[in-house]
Order: sequence, then C-alpha cells, then structure tokens
Amino acid sequence: MRVLGIDPGTLNLGWGVIERDPRGRWIHRGHDCLRAPQRQDFFVRIAELGQKVGELIDLHQPQVAVIENIFLGKNVDSAFKLGHIRGICVAECHKRGLEIFEYSPKVVKKQITGSGSAEKTLVRELLYRQLGIPLDSGKTLDASDALALAFCHIMQDSVRQRIRKAEL
Amino acid sequence: MRVLGIDPGTLNLGWGVIERDPRGRWIHRGHDCLRAPQRQDFFVRIAELGQKVGELIDLHQPQVAVIENIFLGKNVDSAFKLGHIRGICVAECHKRGLEIFEYSPKVVKKQITGSGSAEKTLVRELLYRQLGIPLDSGKTLDASDALALAFCHIMQDSVRQRIRKAEL
Repeated sequence: MRVLGIDPGTLNLGWGVIERDPRGRWIHRGHDCLRAPQRQDFFVRIAELGQKVGELIDLHQPQVAVIENIFLGKNVDSAFKLGHIRGICVAECHKRGLEIFEYSPKVVKKQITGSGSAEKTLVRELLYRQLGIPLDSGKTLDASDALALAFCHIMQDSVRQRIRKAEL
Repeated sequence: MRVLGIDPGTLNLGWGVIERDPRGRWIHRGHDCLRAPQRQDFFVRIAELGQKVGELIDLHQPQVAVIENIFLGKNVDSAFKLGHIRGICVAECHKRGLEIFEYSPKVVKKQITGSGSAEKTLVRELLYRQLGIPLDSGKTLDASDALALAFCHIMQDSVRQRIRKAEL
C-alpha cells in the first residue's frame, strides 16, 4: 500500500509518500513542501497548489491519501481559508480514485513518539530514524508532518488488519 | 461574455449561466441546483459536486465565474465546510481558465432590487422578469441566487466598461 500524506496549507503544503513492502520494509518515495507565492491572488494560489497535488498523485501513484485533521480553534477566517485548500486536495484525490483518511496531529504524534503532545522536531527525528532518512535532509516540518501522517496510517492500518485476522 | 454564477453549498449547490449579446439582449443558458445525497461521506459529496461543476463548465463554456462571498458569522465548523466546496469550485474554474469574481449577497440584492436587504423571493422575481424566465419555472432559491450572481457581474462589468470608455 502506497500512501500520500498531505499537510494542507494555503502558503506551504507538505506532502510525503511512503509504502511498506510485504516484508515490512519501508520504502520512502519522497517528501517535500509545495510553496505558493504569497503575492499571488488567493484563488490562483490555492488552485495552483491543488494542481501540483494532482501532479504528485499522477507521479507517485498512491492508493491512499491521508489528510491532517486539525483542531480548528476560533478563527473563522483561517478555518474558511484552510477549508478551501483541503477541499481542493480531497477533490484531487477522489478524482483519481484514492481512498481518503484523516488523522489529527495528536494521534500522529502519539503513534510515532508515544505522546500526543510531543515536539514536532522529536516526531520528525523518530520518524526519520524509522524510515532511514538522514536527519539533515533539509526538509521543512510541513514536509515531515505530511510524511508522519502517511506513516501513522500504515501503522494503524496494519494493526487493524492484524485484529481482523485474529477475529477470523 | 458568458458568465457562470455559483452559490456554493455542501448539500445544494446553485448554478446559473447567462450572457448578454452585443445588442444588450439577455441569453439564459440555464440555471439549477446540484444536490448531493446527505447520507454520503462529506469528502465524496463535495468531490462529486465539484466534478459536476467541472462538467457544467465543459458544457456551457463560460469565460467568467462568479462565486458568492458570504458573511461568515461565528460558526467555525460551517465556515470550514463551506470553504471546502468553495475551494473545489475555484479550482475547477481556474483549471479551465475562467476568470473568477466574488460578490456578497448584499451587493447582488442591491444591483437587482435597489436594496441590499431585499427578500430572496423579490430578488428572484425581478431577476426572472429581466431575463424573461417564467416565474413558475420551479427552480430553487439556490439556483436563482446563482443566476443573480452572474447577472450582477455582467451589469457591474458593463458599468465599469462604460466608465473606462468615458475616461479615454
């Protein structure tokens, strides 16, 4: 199962693609951050970020997408803006037949570090170690957050599958 | 100029397409409401509504899209959800090269009735009269709201063009 993680943002959008082969070995396909020029019109910016997400899917051919499900807080404008880019990502994934999952940052952190309130840099460090990515790879936290989402889904899915098998 | 108006919603999405010929006569291409089954998963629902918007653009070939710009209020969850479908509509329009404009319901109402706080049914009645659409056409307010957005843009654009010409 090849999984695309997406950390959506209207200026910086993190993405990461990993898979696990039948022997349980991790294969890291890539992770990085898409950036949109802030001076661009909001509509153009989000539409172009979405187009790039579509191109990433076409390139890496994941079967599953995992999108960060954040706690919204009280800022209506931010939630509205974030909704736009999230919707576009969902549409790009659905259009290409990907199954879509959501995890909150807390669940992802807990999966990787054992604590739902761990520092982002610690999450990254432990994630990179598991996947064999050099710690000085120079990627942003948006990029590693996205990869962590994909990692979390694969881990949780394998637990769910083991439970299902045990029940049969 | 052929214009697509969009009144975005995550369950009912209104659309309307009109144009004005060089002699100033209105040509009504169609208006209606796209519906998504409420029982469907939110992601599937918005992605499929977005796909239908794309199909409408391919069918009617508008050059301009006008999307309702609502007052958000205080409900973060609604703003977040509405953001999703709005973002998807924006992306579908941008992908096909449409220029995108926004108007608030107040501006649209004022353009059509002379008052920014007019009843929706009055807006519809006056709009239909202008466009020669039977009052009993059976379309929902989402559909007529979308058509009103397109109408408002064409009217405002023609004023802008006249001002530009007068300045030359």
